[in-house]
Amino acid sequence: MRFGIVARRDREAALKLAYRVYDFLKVSGYEVCVDTETHRHLPEFQEEDVCPLEEFDVDFIIVIGGDGTILRVEHRTKREIPILGINMGTLGFLTEVEPHEAFFALSKLIEGDYHIDERIKLRTYLNGENTVPDALNEVAILTGIPGKIIHLRYYIESGLADEIRADGLIVSTPTGSTGYSMSAGGPFVDPRLDVIVIAPLAPIALSSRPMIVPSYSTIDVRNLALEREIILAIDGQFYTYLKPETEITIKLSPRRTKFVRFTDEVYPKYTMRIKKKF
Amino acid sequence: MRFGIVARRDREAALKLAYRVYDFLKVSGYEVCVDTETHRHLPEFQEEDVCPLEEFDVDFIIVIGGDGTILRVEHRTKREIPILGINMGTLGFLTEVEPHEAFFALSKLIEGDYHIDERIKLRTYLNGENTVPDALNEVAILTGIPGKIIHLRYYIESGLADEIRADGLIVSTPTGSTGYSMSAGGPFVDPRLDVIVIAPLAPIALSSRPMIVPSYSTIDVRNLALEREIILAIDGQFYTYLKPETEITIKLSPRRTKFVRFTDEVYPKYTMRIKKKF
Amino acid sequence: MRFGIVARRDREAALKLAYRVYDFLKVSGYEVCVDTETHRHLPEFQEEDVCPLEEFDVDFIIVIGGDGTILRVEHRTKREIPILGINMGTLGFLTEVEPHEAFFALSKLIEGDYHIDERIKLRTYLNGENTVPDALNEVAILTGIPGKIIHLRYYIESGLADEIRADGLIVSTPTGSTGYSMSAGGPFVDPRLDVIVIAPLAPIALSSRPMIVPSYSTIDVRNLALEREIILAIDGQFYTYLKPETEITIKLSPRRTKFVRFTDEVYPKYTMRIKKKF
Amino acid sequence: MRFGIVARRDREAALKLAYRVYDFLKVSGYEVCVDTETHRHLPEFQEEDVCPLEEFDVDFIIVIGGDGTILRVEHRTKREIPILGINMGTLGFLTEVEPHEAFFALSKLIEGDYHIDERIKLRTYLNGENTVPDALNEVAILTGIPGKIIHLRYYIESGLADEIRADGLIVSTPTGSTGYSMSAGGPFVDPRLDVIVIAPLAPIALSSRPMIVPSYSTIDVRNLALEREIILAIDGQFYTYLKPETEITIKLSPRRTKFVRFTDEVYPKYTMRIKKKF
Repeated sequence: MRFGIVARRDREAALKLAYRVYDFLKVSGYEVCVDTETHRHLPEFQEEDVCPLEEFDVDFIIVIGGDGTILRVEHRTKREIPILGINMGTLGFLTEVEPHEAFFALSKLIEGDYHIDERIKLRTYLNGENTVPDALNEVAILTGIPGKIIHLRYYIESGLADEIRADGLIVSTPTGSTGYSMSAGGPFVDPRLDVIVIAPLAPIALSSRPMIVPSYSTIDVRNLALEREIILAIDGQFYTYLKPETEITIKLSPRRTKFVRFTDEVYPKYTMRIKKKF
Repeated sequence: MRFGIVARRDREAALKLAYRVYDFLKVSGYEVCVDTETHRHLPEFQEEDVCPLEEFDVDFIIVIGGDGTILRVEHRTKREIPILGINMGTLGFLTEVEPHEAFFALSKLIEGDYHIDERIKLRTYLNGENTVPDALNEVAILTGIPGKIIHLRYYIESGLADEIRADGLIVSTPTGSTGYSMSAGGPFVDPRLDVIVIAPLAPIALSSRPMIVPSYSTIDVRNLALEREIILAIDGQFYTYLKPETEITIKLSPRRTKFVRFTDEVYPKYTMRIKKKF
Repeated sequence: MRFGIVARRDREAALKLAYRVYDFLKVSGYEVCVDTETHRHLPEFQEEDVCPLEEFDVDFIIVIGGDGTILRVEHRTKREIPILGINMGTLGFLTEVEPHEAFFALSKLIEGDYHIDERIKLRTYLNGENTVPDALNEVAILTGIPGKIIHLRYYIESGLADEIRADGLIVSTPTGSTGYSMSAGGPFVDPRLDVIVIAPLAPIALSSRPMIVPSYSTIDVRNLALEREIILAIDGQFYTYLKPETEITIKLSPRRTKFVRFTDEVYPKYTMRIKKKF
Repeated sequence: MRFGIVARRDREAALKLAYRVYDFLKVSGYEVCVDTETHRHLPEFQEEDVCPLEEFDVDFIIVIGGDGTILRVEHRTKREIPILGINMGTLGFLTEVEPHEAFFALSKLIEGDYHIDERIKLRTYLNGENTVPDALNEVAILTGIPGKIIHLRYYIESGLADEIRADGLIVSTPTGSTGYSMSAGGPFVDPRLDVIVIAPLAPIALSSRPMIVPSYSTIDVRNLALEREIILAIDGQFYTYLKPETEITIKLSPRRTKFVRFTDEVYPKYTMRIKKKF
C-alpha cells in the first residue's frame, strides 16, 4: 500500500500532525508521498518522498485539513484515489475523523476495516468542450460584476426550467448541498442520492425556487444579457471569466470522489454539522 | 373499457362538462360509472350508472376539477385506477388537460395514444399500524393548538435527523413538493425522482432546514411534549387527532398513483405552474 | 417601595430563587406581594403576603422565569408596573439579568440606579370592541383547523396591503420580532423603533413578504373564506376562536410595557440571543 | 418654472415621449433643459436647451424611464430637485405615472396640484471621508471576487450587531427595500418610515437575519479577511473597489430625494408592484 499526504498549509497543527502521520507510515514500512506544497511549509519531510499532487500515484491520500483542503486535492489529482480526511477545519462536512482519532483510523485503514463512500461529481462543458475541473460541491455561474444581476435561462433536458434575474445560479451535488447552495436557500440533500440541486442566488423574483432534478439530467444555462460577462466558479477553487455568449452545459461526471469511511452513518452525522454553521 | 366520472361539486361548469363527457362516452358505447356525490349535485345522470367512489371498478377515472378533487378520488378509490384530470381548478399541478382539450384527450385515451405516469405515495403507521390513507402529496404532523409549537424529533433509518420546535413537520412526495412543503420553504422536486422532502413548518431554529432523503427511508417522528396533542393531516383531505405519545412512522407505500399523460414533458410544464401561484 | 414576586411554576430553581428574593426584600424592610400561583407551588411564603397577579398594586414586579412567565404577568396585571426579569428560561429576550446577578440587580434597583425601557403593545378590536388582552409580542390570526389554509385580506389605513392564502398572519411589535414573527420569516427589529411587523405564515404565494409599517397604522384583517373559523392567539398566552365574519382591527395600544434595565445596550445584547436559538 | 427632461436612452418610445413633453412645455412658455445624453440619442432637441445633468438648475425634473433612470438622475444632479417619474421601465417603484397619464400629470404639476414625497438617503464614509454618492436605494458591500465569501463584522452605534461570512451585506433605505435587499431576504418597508434595513447576502449562517434599525444609527462595517478586496456598490449605479482594511461607515444623509406625487397612497400602490416582480 502506498499513501499520499497533504496538509492544510496555514495551520501549524495540521502540518505537525501530517509529519507524525508520515513518520508512522514510514516506520510501519509503507511508501509515502508528500505533496510539494505541504513540504514547502514544513521542510522536515525527506526530499525523496515529495512529489506534486498532480503526480500522486498512491492507494490512499491522507488529507489533514478542512473541506477546502480536500476540494484542492480533488481538483489536482488525476485519478480517483480514496481520501481519508482528518478534520483540521471549521466544519468538516467531507472529513471523516478528528485529529485525536487519526492513528486509530490509520490502523483500521491498514487492516482493511473500512468502506468506500462514492460521491457524484458534475462536469461542465463550455460550448460543448470540457476544459474545466469537475465539481464535487457545486458549479456556480455568477455575475462578473458583483451587484449587477445577470439574466439567465436554464433548461433541463432541453425543457425551459426557469428564467431568472439574479446574482447567479448554483448547480450543486448532494455533497455540495451544505455549502453555497444552502446559502442560496437550497435544502440539505442526503449524500446517498443521485440528484442535482439547482438554486438561484438572490433572484429578483422570489417565485424562482431551488429545484431538485435527476442526476442524469442535462442542464443547459444561457446568458441573455449579452453585454455582461459571467464568472464560472467550481467548488470555490477554480475560477474563470466566460464570454457572455458561452453555452454552458452541466452533466453528471463519469468520475466520482471516493472517501474512506469507518461507518455508513448519515444521521445525525451530517445534519448535526449543519447546526455548527450557526 | 369502463370509465368512472367524478366532478368538482362546487362549480357548475365542472358538473356540466362531466355530463358532456358522460354523454360522449355512453353514445360511444362505453360503460360509465358516475360518482354518487357528483350525481347528487347534477341529477341528470341516469341512476343505474351511479355508484360510490369506493366501489369504482373501472379502467380509467375522468376527473373534472382541481388538485383537491383528484386527491379526494385518490383517497376514496380502492384500486390503483389511472386518472385523467381535466383542469377546473386554480393551479392544476395534477391535472393533464384544460377543459377545451377534454374531448380531444378522451379520443387519444380511447385510441391508446397515452402513457401512464406513476407517482409514489407515502404510508403512515401509527404505533406500528396503518389505519390512515396513503398520501399522494404530503403527511403533515401539526400542532393540535394553532400557535402553540410542538417539540418533535425525527429519525431517518433510526438516525436522529433533527429536533425541532415548530408549528409542525411536512413529509412530502415529489408530487407534493409544490404544495404545503413549498409554503414551508421546501424546493421543487422533479416528479420523476424517488425521494422524500422533510420540511419543518415555521421552526424556531432557522438552522432546521428542509431535507431531501431517499424514498426507501423509514422516517420516525416522536413528539417530546407529551402534554400536547398533535394533528395528522394527509393531503389536506384526511385529518385525525393523535395522542401525544403516538409513534409515527412514514414509509414508501406499495401503492402508486397512476395518471394518464399525453406527453412526458416536465419542464416547463411544472415549473411554470409554480409561477402562477404568485 | 413595594415589590411583587412571580416565579415560573415548573422549575424548582426558579421557585427557590423567588423565595430568596422574597426573604431578602422582607429582611430589608420592604412590603412584598407574592403571586397566588407561585405560592401554590412553594408554600413557604407567608400567607398574608400572597395575592393574585390581577390585584398586584406594587412599584416593581420581580419575575423569575423565561419570556413566557413575563408574558403571563403582562397579561394579568392591571397597571403598567415596571418588570425586572431574572432569566430562568431558555432564551430570555425579555429578561434583564441572569440568576447569579439577581441580588446585585436588586440592590441597584433599590438604589435607583436603573432606567425604564418602554415597549409598545398592540390592541386588537373584534367588530370594533376590545375584549382581548394587549399583545407585547404579537397578535396571530391563525387557521382554526391546522393544515387548512385561511384566505385573508389585510389593509393598512384602509389601503389593501395584500391578500393571502396561508396558515395565518402574524402582526408583531419590535419586541415580538424575535418570536413567532421570525419563524414566519420576519426580520429582527430594533426594540427602540415604533413600527409593526406583518408576516404571513406559510403563505402559498411566496410573493407575500413580511412588511414593516408605522406603529400608528390601523391594520384591518378580513377573512374571505366565510365557512372557516379562525383562531386569535395573543402572545402565545391568550386564545380564542372567532366567527369567520369577525372584523379584526389592530392598532397601537395606549398601554406600554415597562422593563427595568441597567444598561441601554441593544447590540450585541439582542442579536446574540438570536444565535442561541439555533 | 423651469423644467429638466431626462429619458431612458435605450428605448425609442421613451425618447419620443421625452420630445413630446419638451415640445408641450416649450409651447406652454416654460424654460426647458434637456440632458446631454438624452440629446445624444435623439438630436431633435434644440441645442441651446441642452445641458449636462450635473448642471441642471431647474424646479422639476421630468424623468421618462424606469427606476434605473431615476437613480442615474439622483446620482448626477447637485441639488435636491423634485422628480416626476413617467414609467417606461419594468417595475416602476419610483415612478409616479404611466405614459398615457403624462400630460394630465404635467398639467396638475403646473397647476400646483401635487405634493412632495421626501425619501431618506444613506451617506457612506470611507475611512471617515465621504467621497462617494448618497444611496437612495442601498449601499451594497460585496465580495470583490464573486463566489468567494467575505468575512464582515458590523456595528450599530458601536455595538456589535453581527459577524457574517457571506457574499456581502446590503444596507438599504425603505425606498430600496423592494430592490436588492428583498432579493437578500429583507422585508418590504413602508416608505414613510425612518428606518434602515441591514440584510446579509447569502450568508453561511442562516441565523444571520435581516435587521431593521433606526435611521439615526451609525453603521460601521469592518472586513476581517484582510487579504480580500471588497466592492462598494451604490444603487447599482456607482461601483468602486475598496482596500480590505477600509473602514466603512454608513449614516443618514442630510440630503433627501424629492418626488412629485399626486396621491399619498401607499397601499396597494407599492405592495402590488411587488407582485409584478414574479
